[in-house]
Amino acid sequence: MRILISLVSSSTSTGLHLLSVSRRLHTKISPFSTLIGLKPPPAMATSEDSIRRCLAEKQSSIESQGNTVRALKAANAEKATVDEAIEKLNALKLDKSVMEKQLQAAVNGNGPDGSINKEAFRQAVVNTLERRLFYIPSFKIYRGVAGLYDYGPPGCAVKSNVLSFWRQHFVLEENMLEVDCPCVTPEAVLKASGHVDKFTDLMVKDEKTGTCYRADHLLKDFCNEKIQKDLSISAEKAAELKHVLAMLDDLSAEELGAKIKEYGITAPDTKNPLSDPYPFNLMFQTSIGPSGLSPGYMRPETAQGIFVNFKDLYYYNGNKLPFAAAQIGQAFRNEISPRQGLLRVREFTLAEIEHFVDPEYKSHPKYSEVADLEFLMFPREQQISAQSAKKIQLGEAVSKGIVNNETLGYFIGRVYLFLTRLGIDKDRLRFRQHLANEMAHYAADCWDAEIESSYGWIECVGIADRSAYDLHAHTVSISLIHTSCIRCEIVSVLANKRQNMCGKEEKSGVPLVAHEKFSEPKEVEKLVIAPVKKELGLAFKGNQKKVVEALEAMNEKEALDMKASLETKGVVEFYVCTLGENVTIKKNMVSISKEKKKEHQRTFTPSVIEPSFGIGRIIYCLYEHSFYMRPSKAGDEQLNVFRFPPLVAPIKCTVFPLVQNQQYENVAKIISKSLTAAGISHKIDITGTSIGKRYARTDELGVPFAITVDSISSVTIRERDSKDQIRVDVEEAAPVMKSVTDGHRTWADVWASFPHHSSGSAED
Amino acid sequence: MRILISLVSSSTSTGLHLLSVSRRLHTKISPFSTLIGLKPPPAMATSEDSIRRCLAEKQSSIESQGNTVRALKAANAEKATVDEAIEKLNALKLDKSVMEKQLQAAVNGNGPDGSINKEAFRQAVVNTLERRLFYIPSFKIYRGVAGLYDYGPPGCAVKSNVLSFWRQHFVLEENMLEVDCPCVTPEAVLKASGHVDKFTDLMVKDEKTGTCYRADHLLKDFCNEKIQKDLSISAEKAAELKHVLAMLDDLSAEELGAKIKEYGITAPDTKNPLSDPYPFNLMFQTSIGPSGLSPGYMRPETAQGIFVNFKDLYYYNGNKLPFAAAQIGQAFRNEISPRQGLLRVREFTLAEIEHFVDPEYKSHPKYSEVADLEFLMFPREQQISAQSAKKIQLGEAVSKGIVNNETLGYFIGRVYLFLTRLGIDKDRLRFRQHLANEMAHYAADCWDAEIESSYGWIECVGIADRSAYDLHAHTVSISLIHTSCIRCEIVSVLANKRQNMCGKEEKSGVPLVAHEKFSEPKEVEKLVIAPVKKELGLAFKGNQKKVVEALEAMNEKEALDMKASLETKGVVEFYVCTLGENVTIKKNMVSISKEKKKEHQRTFTPSVIEPSFGIGRIIYCLYEHSFYMRPSKAGDEQLNVFRFPPLVAPIKCTVFPLVQNQQYENVAKIISKSLTAAGISHKIDITGTSIGKRYARTDELGVPFAITVDSISSVTIRERDSKDQIRVDVEEAAPVMKSVTDGHRTWADVWASFPHHSSGSAED
Repeated sequence: MRILISLVSSSTSTGLHLLSVSRRLHTKISPFSTLIGLKPPPAMATSEDSIRRCLAEKQSSIESQGNTVRALKAANAEKATVDEAIEKLNALKLDKSVMEKQLQAAVNGNGPDGSINKEAFRQAVVNTLERRLFYIPSFKIYRGVAGLYDYGPPGCAVKSNVLSFWRQHFVLEENMLEVDCPCVTPEAVLKASGHVDKFTDLMVKDEKTGTCYRADHLLKDFCNEKIQKDLSISAEKAAELKHVLAMLDDLSAEELGAKIKEYGITAPDTKNPLSDPYPFNLMFQTSIGPSGLSPGYMRPETAQGIFVNFKDLYYYNGNKLPFAAAQIGQAFRNEISPRQGLLRVREFTLAEIEHFVDPEYKSHPKYSEVADLEFLMFPREQQISAQSAKKIQLGEAVSKGIVNNETLGYFIGRVYLFLTRLGIDKDRLRFRQHLANEMAHYAADCWDAEIESSYGWIECVGIADRSAYDLHAHTVSISLIHTSCIRCEIVSVLANKRQNMCGKEEKSGVPLVAHEKFSEPKEVEKLVIAPVKKELGLAFKGNQKKVVEALEAMNEKEALDMKASLETKGVVEFYVCTLGENVTIKKNMVSISKEKKKEHQRTFTPSVIEPSFGIGRIIYCLYEHSFYMRPSKAGDEQLNVFRFPPLVAPIKCTVFPLVQNQQYENVAKIISKSLTAAGISHKIDITGTSIGKRYARTDELGVPFAITVDSISSVTIRERDSKDQIRVDVEEAAPVMKSVTDGHRTWADVWASFPHHSSGSAED
Repeated sequence: MRILISLVSSSTSTGLHLLSVSRRLHTKISPFSTLIGLKPPPAMATSEDSIRRCLAEKQSSIESQGNTVRALKAANAEKATVDEAIEKLNALKLDKSVMEKQLQAAVNGNGPDGSINKEAFRQAVVNTLERRLFYIPSFKIYRGVAGLYDYGPPGCAVKSNVLSFWRQHFVLEENMLEVDCPCVTPEAVLKASGHVDKFTDLMVKDEKTGTCYRADHLLKDFCNEKIQKDLSISAEKAAELKHVLAMLDDLSAEELGAKIKEYGITAPDTKNPLSDPYPFNLMFQTSIGPSGLSPGYMRPETAQGIFVNFKDLYYYNGNKLPFAAAQIGQAFRNEISPRQGLLRVREFTLAEIEHFVDPEYKSHPKYSEVADLEFLMFPREQQISAQSAKKIQLGEAVSKGIVNNETLGYFIGRVYLFLTRLGIDKDRLRFRQHLANEMAHYAADCWDAEIESSYGWIECVGIADRSAYDLHAHTVSISLIHTSCIRCEIVSVLANKRQNMCGKEEKSGVPLVAHEKFSEPKEVEKLVIAPVKKELGLAFKGNQKKVVEALEAMNEKEALDMKASLETKGVVEFYVCTLGENVTIKKNMVSISKEKKKEHQRTFTPSVIEPSFGIGRIIYCLYEHSFYMRPSKAGDEQLNVFRFPPLVAPIKCTVFPLVQNQQYENVAKIISKSLTAAGISHKIDITGTSIGKRYARTDELGVPFAITVDSISSVTIRERDSKDQIRVDVEEAAPVMKSVTDGHRTWADVWASFPHHSSGSAED
């Protein structure tokens, strides 16, 4: 669930969604600046900043020294004097060029050629991935479609392994209720969730060709280009541009348009002028059925399918809380201009969990199992004070209130375990808390699991405590609620009455609530509002119904105020939002009282804690974290390796006859058969290629083990990263593979139990 | 791949697709009638037929006897005479009513209340499925959308188990290349595959309300209703209606419209007149990117994603044939009016295999592993001669040429093993061969795995040898090929030249071909067509290019005929399809010769053999085949059971403490933990409900085993169907469960190894 809707605040923010937040983070310098309006903050004394200042001074020294030289020459000064002045000028120019290099390095973050290394590294990874068909640009023979990718055989196997492990780690271990809903979704559902109105990005058009661009991308590119390439800009200008980058996601259409005009940004391809920014809905629209009258969308997330089934799932769980539902499936976003390869795509696999919990009891029975974990966390405070992420013990974060509650903490811990077991480097994984302005007003707390890649820190999992928002939204359509009307917010009261104050007919009308049965009845004081319909009918005629509804929808404070006014003054002015005007209520028109009642249960809307996984992003980051290069044995080339753990590896082992020989091939087939029976994905390679080349080929696919058949009774098993080799009997090969690939034994265990094979003979 | 396109034949058939064929089969009586045009065939002497004739005779006897009685009465005949005549009349009426019952029984197929039983059985299954959330009508709280269903927790687990087994049985065992392509597909791809033009159903509209109906459904309903409910129609009329049913899928829009008019069929809901039938494309349309200028569709099948990647996959496989690629994923069809619950839906999961093979070598190395299998087959001959399916040994079917080739036979055998291992009843599974008129002209052979359900025989898997059609289609866009132009068919020649005879620019232009390297070069005689461009330019000016292309595209026979004509007569008339007219070719305009060349390899377009699985249909049939009812122990109610094999069961076992007791609950938790560690999905039920009720609850979910904790050292394990119980030590519970659920041991093995528990104590 990736929409934040500002209900009460008058925030100008457009519909943000979690997976877009990473756009901001790549460039975030001083995120708190977003809190203090459009004026740039006072420039901070960063090293980049001081270099820019020195550079500006150096530049003016050069100019003044240049003037000096020209003046000396004009005055026909002595050669020695002129030469000395020229020498000084050259020295200044040399200083400047050194400073420019320093500035370039500071701008790029890590070392003088940091960004170049990142680019080169990414290129090496991506080349290997494409060449070995981990992924393929979709519909390539038709010149492809931006933002759509196929997973080829190894990529598909990796994805399938990641999803299997996700099911094991979350669904099975937590007894979650997995559901599988369609992608085609009718409009009413996405209207209620807010997507139809708010799931947009701002777009500009080339005024001549009509080509579309994302407005914030153009502004971002302009600022980055300026900061990184134009070394002559002042420190103040640089600070301003950085400030714009930091608040990119908070700019309204008008503000974005104004900045684009101010900076004179034109269409990148044609240099034509651009239109004003306007919102473009990111959902793929379609039509359900033959009439053309039922609009539908391809779901932009899987979560809504769970929310609309809450009632049935709660029943399935024996009407007990807490419980979690989960869904794995495709989601769709018609990105305006997809970039960053596999990270921003138009169709992707999401795995989402909705954990429903009583808002008054957010503890978790298995919390103690993760409380001792320690990993990089980046709480709000650290971000605001420009510190970096630091290692914090999860239990401490929860007990200090940094993480809002135990259940949220439990899921953060489980996500950490999930990602690191897949092979994500724990030093390049951090949990970043959302800033106050990133979260919707209804959210209790929100953390993103961010993984560092060559593109920067990428949000791969969002873990949010969304309170009761989503279940409310489907009971009373939030999109129909007046933002100016305070009564519209008390949706839970309305939910039970199956009616919607300000709304028309678009709502499910089904209360999505839970109950807590009391062990013995409790006496409670209840507000009773009894409109006197006869009197109201006489006074308001056709508007009577709306007035009655408005009276019944008053909250306690409103009702008691009215009661007091009626008792003292006899009349009161009362705003009816469905009429859009005040009406006069007299004492005889409504009776308001407090009555004591015995209640046997409490009815409430559960809170939902939502871990949402972008599977494709996790897999891409995993590729980067798993990739390394090492020299070939001869030392004449660099070989690519993916160090996937067996859990993830697309193929668990290869079987190679050392030489082309019928006997060895027969042994290889026998081993292959027993591997298949044990459910181990593997490949036989009987080509006559050298064994070293065959190893290199499979290292590049991340195959962790290779079985080389070099005798008819026993074989050599080689581990990919250490290149260590052991000898095992033919009939032991499959059982050994089984135990090391299903995690019952480590390679170290196996290494300790079998005779070692001296390398060399098989490697060449 | 479910489109049959009639390229050469002038068939009027609309775009058929495999999964729709089942529509016809439910009602098929004399399929061969479709071969002989619109006139009904001579009525056959079926039992139904003869009853109708007798009934008609009986009716006229009644009428004539009625006349006799009236005449006697009018003539004031003797009472005894009148009474005798009346008695005779009553006897005739009694006969008639017996006959009507017989006819009703014959119409319904199996027994006097066959269809009623089927309906009742289906209702019992569906009630259980919906109540236990195997499936849920999607977006129920928003009043749902026809043809969209969610899988709830047990349904989702069954689906996930079926797909895992599919991956194991096909992808892993056959080393297939699995891919994962997007659902959003650009128009060019589906234009080339033929879906944009031909993937349609015929629709009629209520002329007043605009409500849409499938034309063939209305006609089908009318005929069925008439045959089943109107016992007075003549045998000839019944035969005519059955004939219409049998050829429903072959009717053109005009023929369907004519029949609807002839029978006076009106809109079912309003009785308003209907529009003429017109084609409605079943693809969900959308737009890719923000411009609105790139139409796209939600894929109607997964196969195209494989075909467009053929070149990369062939390379990935070391440029070797045969190999198979596979894909599991969502497919979408915007059905006009979805019916039959889970069987005809608008979004569903397909699992498709494309096995690419050299058309000259269609043997299969593992064929012998399936050749001895014997199961129900329904070859074309049997269907035409109105026989029923019979048990045939697969090897015999292949050797006799009933099944076209070994590879096709191999997949038929593998599909049989897959379905029966899931729990499909082998006596309600048949492989039906497509009739000549059901297949596209390019298909070599095609068999459907049909499963009998309460809806009749349902096509669940299609296994087709589609020859080179699909790879051709993406090289040269078939939709652009003139159906009247013989030269347009020699696409493989053109493919290698990257040009398309009659087409415009819409084609991939990438040759999707394979090569066979010869062990030594072969000398071949090659036809060389060398147009003399200078002379052609002089003669045809601007049309020269089209004439050259047409000359180069001639096949061998055409070219040699031209050569002969030119040598004898000096000129020849030549039809150029791109010009749409004949031109005169003179001797000096083209040189045609045969030259000997050495060739090092053969280039060809591979054939594709395609098993395509409708996962949702298989699962629904599995539900019906697994469902049964048995009396409760007290005999006072019928309990529902799904007899899923452990492989499929959504939950493998439950853990019940016999009574609510902390010690037992602790033991249950210990067992639960070891089950989780072993990866066995299970559920603990610690409610105080009687153990019998708890068994009944889980039987209804198809849970095969229950572990009842009735002591702290050992437990009782109960098998669902036999209700047999054994006793095992606490620490053995998980390993025993592991071995029986992963198939390493059967319940019989376990039953033989552990002490039995006398039933009764735990059951209550």
